[in-house]
Amino acid sequence: MRTRAAVAVAAGQPLEIMEVNLEGPKWGEVLVEIKATGICHTDEFTLSGADPEGLFPAILGHEGAGVVLEVGPGVTSLKPGDHVIPLYTPECRQCPSCLSQKTNLCTAIRATQGQGLMPDGTTRFSMLDGTPIHHYMGCSTFANHTVLPEIALAKVREDAPFDKICYIGCGVTTGIGAVINTAKVEIGAKAVVFGLGGIGLNVLQGLKLAGADMIIGVDINNDRKAWGERFGMTHFVNPKEIDGSVVQHIVNLTKTPFDQIGGADYSFDCTGNVKVMRDALECTHRGWGVSVVIGVAPAGAEIATRPFQLVTGRVWKGTAFGGARGRTDVPKIVDWYMDGKIQIDPMITHTMGLEDINKGFDLMHKGESIRSVVLY
Amino acid sequence: MRTRAAVAVAAGQPLEIMEVNLEGPKWGEVLVEIKATGICHTDEFTLSGADPEGLFPAILGHEGAGVVLEVGPGVTSLKPGDHVIPLYTPECRQCPSCLSQKTNLCTAIRATQGQGLMPDGTTRFSMLDGTPIHHYMGCSTFANHTVLPEIALAKVREDAPFDKICYIGCGVTTGIGAVINTAKVEIGAKAVVFGLGGIGLNVLQGLKLAGADMIIGVDINNDRKAWGERFGMTHFVNPKEIDGSVVQHIVNLTKTPFDQIGGADYSFDCTGNVKVMRDALECTHRGWGVSVVIGVAPAGAEIATRPFQLVTGRVWKGTAFGGARGRTDVPKIVDWYMDGKIQIDPMITHTMGLEDINKGFDLMHKGESIRSVVLY
Ligand SMILES: [Zn+2]
Ligand SMILES: [Zn+2]
Ligand SMILES: [Zn+2]
Ligand SMILES: [Zn+2]
Repeated sequence: MRTRAAVAVAAGQPLEIMEVNLEGPKWGEVLVEIKATGICHTDEFTLSGADPEGLFPAILGHEGAGVVLEVGPGVTSLKPGDHVIPLYTPECRQCPSCLSQKTNLCTAIRATQGQGLMPDGTTRFSMLDGTPIHHYMGCSTFANHTVLPEIALAKVREDAPFDKICYIGCGVTTGIGAVINTAKVEIGAKAVVFGLGGIGLNVLQGLKLAGADMIIGVDINNDRKAWGERFGMTHFVNPKEIDGSVVQHIVNLTKTPFDQIGGADYSFDCTGNVKVMRDALECTHRGWGVSVVIGVAPAGAEIATRPFQLVTGRVWKGTAFGGARGRTDVPKIVDWYMDGKIQIDPMITHTMGLEDINKGFDLMHKGESIRSVVLY
Repeated sequence: MRTRAAVAVAAGQPLEIMEVNLEGPKWGEVLVEIKATGICHTDEFTLSGADPEGLFPAILGHEGAGVVLEVGPGVTSLKPGDHVIPLYTPECRQCPSCLSQKTNLCTAIRATQGQGLMPDGTTRFSMLDGTPIHHYMGCSTFANHTVLPEIALAKVREDAPFDKICYIGCGVTTGIGAVINTAKVEIGAKAVVFGLGGIGLNVLQGLKLAGADMIIGVDINNDRKAWGERFGMTHFVNPKEIDGSVVQHIVNLTKTPFDQIGGADYSFDCTGNVKVMRDALECTHRGWGVSVVIGVAPAGAEIATRPFQLVTGRVWKGTAFGGARGRTDVPKIVDWYMDGKIQIDPMITHTMGLEDINKGFDLMHKGESIRSVVLY
């Protein structure tokens, strides 16, 4: 069949809207009509050329929602008409990682996914002249139709609006999951979030959901203060407007008459800046502070600290897709949205048709959007 | 009173055996007759001048065992005749850290202890000419008699031999505690220990106690292979004798027909070398590997890695005194020794009188001893 897609033809160039060929689903695969897709910083990271593993031409996009049109042979858990969210972290439930029950990082199709291919080692997309087009993060939601492995689709309730729940395919789940799955924040905790963009705001609402007492947001953009407050932030820090280091500032802010040591119980880096990641670790509490890296760092960048920070009880960890098992956890997060436990609507600041997708990237560059969503 | 001590008069100089003045216990303090003390790398670190917080003159030593001779006013949990192990990490049970139930890093006397002083800000030791001598790690077990706060003494059973259980005051508890308190290793795990000295061998026996399946020891000294095997090591790796990196070697060693990703479930750095700390993190399993820093790094040294290592599920943490709450846990470890659950005797390779304490440091420098113990 043919479908319409925004194709990343080369690093650093705008996406090109074009008709492309799409082969039908093979064994274990599913054809999905994408109804809506968010534009995430990771798409921008790859499109810019900064991602050393970026491949071109490719159809980017990994934050979508849609409807199953057709299932290939061997598919048992989905049927045409099902509503689905594509999963860039699949959940096969059979590989050593899935069976470990210690990680969400399913490895069933990792090798081919990283090469921009379906599990059989080929692509379903091609240019009209026959040139193959790479898949992206196993999703390629910047096409109106796409093919995914069955294990990379979460089946969700049919009354949930595509233009909102697409965001659960990445940003919402990453932010909330980092709090509840990776950090396992408990009621009464003090937490700090560095970077109040599309991920950071979701970390904030995850912290509110988890019952944290003190929810500190850190951003160099003062416009983000009002944003943070809408999602549960109790204190805002602009590192450019304080005296001294942000680490010392947060340590002081978290001191109590009883606890004169100070420091956050949990911190989250949503910036991708390795210097900020260090601050995030070092502002946590001696003895038990846990710092979670969420942001994607530039190629080759390294985090560093003195080992004394760890020996005195701080823990440095990271999260991918919020530690969520996509097929199991994503439908629950959709329920939470539908039940009003979490918000999505106010974060979707812009919507546009596929033909205007490059405007969505422009809004991101200017820091004017939290999330732009493309509606097909 | 007067007692005999090995005094560190200046950085880089041998200890000097001399008579010193010792004031009696003040409020909340206890006078202890030290019966035996181990010589640990941390003593050497400070004596060498490498420790930026080292103070001189001082009476070093922090791995002792002895008998209470006298208690000061306000002391309720100890009486003359009690057998005790000094604790460089005290347990007050009342500070924010103790009450958090998340860390063993009691802060009740941290500030003064770091300054080589008793909690009231003075020293009990002085030269015969009146020059004050600093305490060390709150213990100063290189003196035949010493004064400690009540909260820095673990009361232990009276049938346990001082010349063996002194080692529980640091090395044994640090190594075993890192496994059971900090990493919380489970039955069937695969673990790697970097550096098979006085701490590393105790990590090995901790892993055996915890029921680990694969216990890999890494050391550049082949003599340590036989040592490791005595304490439960199942595989030995000499990084100088393998092709390629130690990280890849361990990843390959831990692969199974089912799990072709490979990597250790847990790793422990007992070297203090920041490059080894990085290897220890990176050789752990994607998705769930936990690496614990135990070794003390040189001043200013930093650990580094790509944040991708954390984002893909590895956890970097550290431990001090094996995460043990001294007054609560040390008596249990003494029981484990007396019950034969753990070994200590074979690790104490040398004993000597206080007058020969500098020979103990020489043996350590040459790598000839696992532990030297000074008997008073
Ligand atoms: Zn994303
Ligand atoms: Zn899997
Ligand atoms: Zn020690
Ligand atoms: Zn305490």
